[in-house]
Amino acid sequence: MHTKKLNQSIVDRISELLESSSIDRVLAEIEEFHPEDVAELLERLDLEQAKALLYALPEERAAEVIVELDEEVRASLLQEYSGKELAQEVIENLDSDDAADIISELPQEKIHEVLQSLEDPDQAREIADLLNYAEDTAGSIMAKELVKVNASWKLMRCLREMRRQAEKVDQVHAIYVVDDDDRLLGTLSLKKLLTTSTKTPVSEVYDRKIIKVTTDTHVEEVARLMRKYDLVVIPVVDHEGRLMGRITFDDVMDVMKEEAERDYQMASGLAQDVESADSIFALSKARLPWLLIGMLGGVISSRVVDFFDISQYPEMAAFMPLIAATGGNVGVQSAALVVQSLANDSFNESILQKLLKDLGVGLVTALVCASLMFAVTAALGKPFNLSITVSIALVSVIVFAAMFGTLVPLTLNKFKIDPAVATGPFVTTTNDVIGLFIYFSVAKLIM
Amino acid sequence: MHTKKLNQSIVDRISELLESSSIDRVLAEIEEFHPEDVAELLERLDLEQAKALLYALPEERAAEVIVELDEEVRASLLQEYSGKELAQEVIENLDSDDAADIISELPQEKIHEVLQSLEDPDQAREIADLLNYAEDTAGSIMAKELVKVNASWKLMRCLREMRRQAEKVDQVHAIYVVDDDDRLLGTLSLKKLLTTSTKTPVSEVYDRKIIKVTTDTHVEEVARLMRKYDLVVIPVVDHEGRLMGRITFDDVMDVMKEEAERDYQMASGLAQDVESADSIFALSKARLPWLLIGMLGGVISSRVVDFFDISQYPEMAAFMPLIAATGGNVGVQSAALVVQSLANDSFNESILQKLLKDLGVGLVTALVCASLMFAVTAALGKPFNLSITVSIALVSVIVFAAMFGTLVPLTLNKFKIDPAVATGPFVTTTNDVIGLFIYFSVAKLIM
Repeated sequence: MHTKKLNQSIVDRISELLESSSIDRVLAEIEEFHPEDVAELLERLDLEQAKALLYALPEERAAEVIVELDEEVRASLLQEYSGKELAQEVIENLDSDDAADIISELPQEKIHEVLQSLEDPDQAREIADLLNYAEDTAGSIMAKELVKVNASWKLMRCLREMRRQAEKVDQVHAIYVVDDDDRLLGTLSLKKLLTTSTKTPVSEVYDRKIIKVTTDTHVEEVARLMRKYDLVVIPVVDHEGRLMGRITFDDVMDVMKEEAERDYQMASGLAQDVESADSIFALSKARLPWLLIGMLGGVISSRVVDFFDISQYPEMAAFMPLIAATGGNVGVQSAALVVQSLANDSFNESILQKLLKDLGVGLVTALVCASLMFAVTAALGKPFNLSITVSIALVSVIVFAAMFGTLVPLTLNKFKIDPAVATGPFVTTTNDVIGLFIYFSVAKLIM
Repeated sequence: MHTKKLNQSIVDRISELLESSSIDRVLAEIEEFHPEDVAELLERLDLEQAKALLYALPEERAAEVIVELDEEVRASLLQEYSGKELAQEVIENLDSDDAADIISELPQEKIHEVLQSLEDPDQAREIADLLNYAEDTAGSIMAKELVKVNASWKLMRCLREMRRQAEKVDQVHAIYVVDDDDRLLGTLSLKKLLTTSTKTPVSEVYDRKIIKVTTDTHVEEVARLMRKYDLVVIPVVDHEGRLMGRITFDDVMDVMKEEAERDYQMASGLAQDVESADSIFALSKARLPWLLIGMLGGVISSRVVDFFDISQYPEMAAFMPLIAATGGNVGVQSAALVVQSLANDSFNESILQKLLKDLGVGLVTALVCASLMFAVTAALGKPFNLSITVSIALVSVIVFAAMFGTLVPLTLNKFKIDPAVATGPFVTTTNDVIGLFIYFSVAKLIM
C-alpha cells in the first residue's frame, strides 16, 4: 500500500460516521491504516470522538496507536483509564522503552498503580529499572528486549535459543554475543549465521569490533555515534560492560529531529518548542522573549543615537538601518557556521586560526560591500564626507561582527551553554547596537 | 571498543610516523579503527600522506574508507587512480548504491572506463541502471542488493535461498516476498522465519502491509515516510510494482541532515552549503548574497528616510533601529513556524485560519511591546507625540510583519519554491523597509 497523506475529507467522513455511531464501519475503514495514521486521525478528531474510537480498537492495536500519539493528546485520551486498565490493556502490549516512556508521563500515584497491576513481574521490574535513568541518557531511551547468545554456544544452539527469544522481540536488528557474566563481547551477523555450518562455535565467527555506549551516555552523543557509523541499533552496557539494553535508530531519529528543530527555532528567534498549531497564547509566549531582547537593543540604540546628537547630522539617519542590519546579518552568519561545525563535531581548527580566517572573510566581504556602498552613496548625490563615513563604518562593522559572531558561540560552548543560543537574540542585537556606535564614532572623526 | 574522538595528538603522531616512513606501524596503529575514523584521519592529514596511507591499506578496507570520505577529499585522493584501478580495487568491493555514488562524481570519460573495466557484467549493468535515475529520486539513492523470496516457496527453501543471497548482501534488514513476475507482495519477518515450522509456505506467514516507494519518489518524501513509520529500510518498486531496490535508513539520515542544515543555513543567511573549514573565498561567496540583499534593503530604507525628510523630526531617528529590527524579527518568527509545519507535514489549517491566528498572535505581542515602549519612551522624557508615534507604529509593524511572514513562505510553497528561502533575506529585509515606511507614515499623521 502506498501511504497517502491523511486528507481533511477522510477525517470529516470518519467524524460523520462516528456521529451516526457506525463505529463498525469506521473500524472497517481504518483497518488497513498504519498505527501512525490512526494516531494522526485521533489527533484531528474531537476529543470525545477520539476517545470513542480508541476504546473500540482491538487492545493490541490500541496500544500501538497510543505509542504514536502526540504527548498532549495522549495525556487527554488516557486520563480516564484506571491504573489497572492502563497496565493490562496498554502497557502489557508494549516494548519496555515505549512502556517506560508512556508511564513516565503519568502522575506519580498512577505510575505506582500501573506497575503494581502488571501481571508479569519481570516486565514490571524492567520498566521500573528504565524509569530510574536520568533524562537524556542512553539508559532512559533504551529498550530491554534483545536477542543475545553466549560466545561458547554452537550456531545450532544459537538458532534454537533465538527462536525462543524472538517471541518477545518485535524486530531483530542484531544478535549480541555475551560471556557467562553477560558482558558484551560483540555481535553475530545474520549473514554469518545463515552461511556458516551450524556446528561452528559462536566464538569463531562473531564480530568483535563493536560500538557501544554506557547507560549514562548523553542521547545526543548516542545520536552522533549512530549517525557517524550508520548504525541501526546500538547496545547499551553498564560500567562493568554488562549488556543492559539497546537503542534503535528510530529513537535516535527523534533526538536528531528535536535537536535540529531546536537549533532552527533558536536561529529564527523562537524561545520555546512551538508549532503552528499551538494556541495563540503559547505562540505569543515563545515569540516575546526575542522581541523584548530586540527591543532592549533598540532602546540602547536610541541612547547611542541621542548620545551622538543626531540633530547635528540628520543626513546620517538615512544609513542607520543599513549599518545595523549588516552588522546583525554578518554576526548571525558567523555564529551559525560555528554552531554547525560544533554540532557536526568538525571543529578542528584552533580558536586563533578560526579568528584569523574570520578576519579574512570579514575583510573580503567588507571590501565588496563598502566599495559598492561608496558608489551607491555617490550616485545618490550624498556628500563625500557621508560616503566615506558609511564605507569606513561598514568595513569596521563587518569585520567586528564576523569575529564577535565567532567568539560568542565558542565562549558559550566552553561554559557548556548551548552555542545555538548565539544565533538567536544576543549576537544580532549586540551587533546592531555596536554597529551604530561604530558608525557614529567614525562620523565624529570624519565630519 | 568505545569510540573516542580522533584528537589532534593522534593525527600528529600518525603524521610523524608517515614522515619516518613507518607505514607498517601506522597500519598496526589504525587496525582497530572503523572505516569512518580512518576516513576522518585521511581528511586531516596532508594530501600526500593521505594518498600514501590509502594506497597502503588492504584493498577491501580502502574501499570501505573511500565511501566514508568527504566528496572533495575523495576527488583529490582518487585523481591518480586509473579507470581500471578504480573498477577493480574500489568499485568491485562496494554495494551498488555506494558504487554508483562514487562513479557519478567522476569525469564523464572516466565513468565509461570504470564501467567497462568491471569484471562482473551484472554489477556493471546494475550500476549503469542506477546512474540513470534523476538526482533526488528514490532510484538514485537505492541499492540493488537485497534478499527476496517467492511467495510460493516453503520456509525451508527460503532459508536455503537466503543463504545463497546473503553472500552478496552485507546486512539483511528485510526479507522481501515477490510473486513470479518479481512484483513486491510484502515482507517476511525474521521472527516469523525463526519461529514457524519450515514446512509452512511463505504465502501463509508474510506481512502484506508494506510501505514502499517508486523509483521516482523524491528523496525528501522517502525520508518523511521512513521517519514517520520508523523504517530501517524501504523497498523501491517501478510503476508495474516490480521490486527494483531498497533504501536503508542511513542514506535517509544523510538526506534529513542535509535538509535540516540547508534550512538552518537559509535561516542564518548563508546562500550555499558551506562549513567553517571551507576556504575564505567559498565562505565569502556564501555570505555575500544575503549581505547584498540586506544592503539593498538598507539603501531603500535610506530613500524612505530621505523621502520623509528626517531633518524635520531628527528625534525620530533614535527609534528607527528599534522599529526596523522588530519588524524583521517578527517576520522571521512567522516564516520559520510556517516552514517548520510545512516540513513536518503538519500544516492542517486553512490559509485563512492561519492568518486569523497570526493576527491574534500579532495583536497580543504587539500590545505587550507597544505598551512597554510607551512606558520606556515616557521614562526617557521623550515628547508625548513621539511616544505615541513609536507605540502605534510598533503595533502596525508587528501585525503586518506577522502576516507577511506567514504569507511569503505559503506563497513560495504554492509555486513549488523551497519555503525556507523566506526565512532568509527576503522577509527580514522587506519588513525592515516596510517597518520604516509605516513608522514615518504614522509620524506624518500624528506630528
